Amino acid sequence: VHRFYVVAFPHSGEFDLPADEARHLFRVLRLRPGDTIAVFDGDGREVLARVESAGSQHVRVRAIEPRAPAAEARVRVTLAQALLKGDKMDRVISDAVMLGVAAIQPCVTRRTDVPMRALREGGRQDRWQRTVVSSVKQCGRAVVPRIQETKPFTELLRSGLPEPRLMFVEPAAGVHAAEVASLEQQRPAEATVIIGPEGGWDPRDIDEARSAGVTLLSFGERVLRADAAAAAVLSVLRYIWRDL
Amino acid sequence: VHRFYVVAFPHSGEFDLPADEARHLFRVLRLRPGDTIAVFDGDGREVLARVESAGSQHVRVRAIEPRAPAAEARVRVTLAQALLKGDKMDRVISDAVMLGVAAIQPCVTRRTDVPMRALREGGRQDRWQRTVVSSVKQCGRAVVPRIQETKPFTELLRSGLPEPRLMFVEPAAGVHAAEVASLEQQRPAEATVIIGPEGGWDPRDIDEARSAGVTLLSFGERVLRADAAAAAVLSVLRYIWRDL
Repeated sequence: VHRFYVVAFPHSGEFDLPADEARHLFRVLRLRPGDTIAVFDGDGREVLARVESAGSQHVRVRAIEPRAPAAEARVRVTLAQALLKGDKMDRVISDAVMLGVAAIQPCVTRRTDVPMRALREGGRQDRWQRTVVSSVKQCGRAVVPRIQETKPFTELLRSGLPEPRLMFVEPAAGVHAAEVASLEQQRPAEATVIIGPEGGWDPRDIDEARSAGVTLLSFGERVLRADAAAAAVLSVLRYIWRDL
Repeated sequence: VHRFYVVAFPHSGEFDLPADEARHLFRVLRLRPGDTIAVFDGDGREVLARVESAGSQHVRVRAIEPRAPAAEARVRVTLAQALLKGDKMDRVISDAVMLGVAAIQPCVTRRTDVPMRALREGGRQDRWQRTVVSSVKQCGRAVVPRIQETKPFTELLRSGLPEPRLMFVEPAAGVHAAEVASLEQQRPAEATVIIGPEGGWDPRDIDEARSAGVTLLSFGERVLRADAAAAAVLSVLRYIWRDL
């Protein structure tokens, strides 16, 4: 059943889909009155609904009954990801949503290779949010994780991110870092996972993080591509916390 | 240091780079005589080498000393991946190489949505092999995993893949499947990991696999996108087997 995102829809009775969802339902999926869809509110609630009337501008649906979305992860993880070039950030966001993150916090590190201008002009925040919604639809969640405003790394460390804060460093960094297995003892209620950019961490980033009380972790002997690291780390953390 | 792939280069002394690697060195990376590079043979051996002469057609280098590549994984994993559409297969291959697979075996299942014609005409096998080499260069391995010829799923099950054979099924499949944690007891010498296509497994695929003695496993409650599933599963298996 196709899933549509409607912020704060009424608990029962009829309501309209937003214009973009209406267009998608009518034009792309070619659904018609009588068809059954699912509607979720981005905040954890989902219902089955029936299409009552449909056109390319207006689609009216009627809630039928509550529907159980995919279970949310037990550990509320915020992914703090250094900006990546091109569409790599979209891949990271899409994967992270699928792996159950509660929020995404983009950041700019000393080696981040994305001009701030590209950030401001590119409408990136909007595109990222669309990527989030698209991934939410695919993976069956009814919660839409927030993408926080991009912050410089130094500011991020002072911004009250959920504890524990876990920063992953490359094996070659020559930094004393604990093994990820050291997290096996207990499952936290929340956590922040910090992943670096293509060029890796600058030693000053690492020093700053350590001084700020962040836990440095290594992910074994392998070098992971920047755009694949978050998914690998999140998969293993979910496993360690029995939260897959 | 930039890494180049040269099959069976001599242990010491001078040798030429293949034409495509020579072009890349000279035209793209603009390296010149005196520059230091690394050369690996795809079979686990790597040396540091110096560029002796360079042009867009011919590059001659001299081996200086052996160099330790990234350690190979202890468990030799063959990834049997159902074909995916468009460039999704390339993403899977690239991630799998980074996560240390020994070989990749593409297969066609009942719900595989890729026409066999596209397979034959598209030069896919060549493209996949280039994706493998590119990922090997990035992640520091000196072994180039092989991509086996694409097989129908039924034939794959009879083809003597490394044991244990672990097939991942969706939580919704209603199939009795063990938790991935059941693999924690011991680290095998090798294994086959079987991942399905976008449309999921057909119940007949699952029945066939079970009859053939394949172990069915579930990866928790979450639905993973087909092009992200292999990386998530491989990350967790490496963790479970203390083989990151």
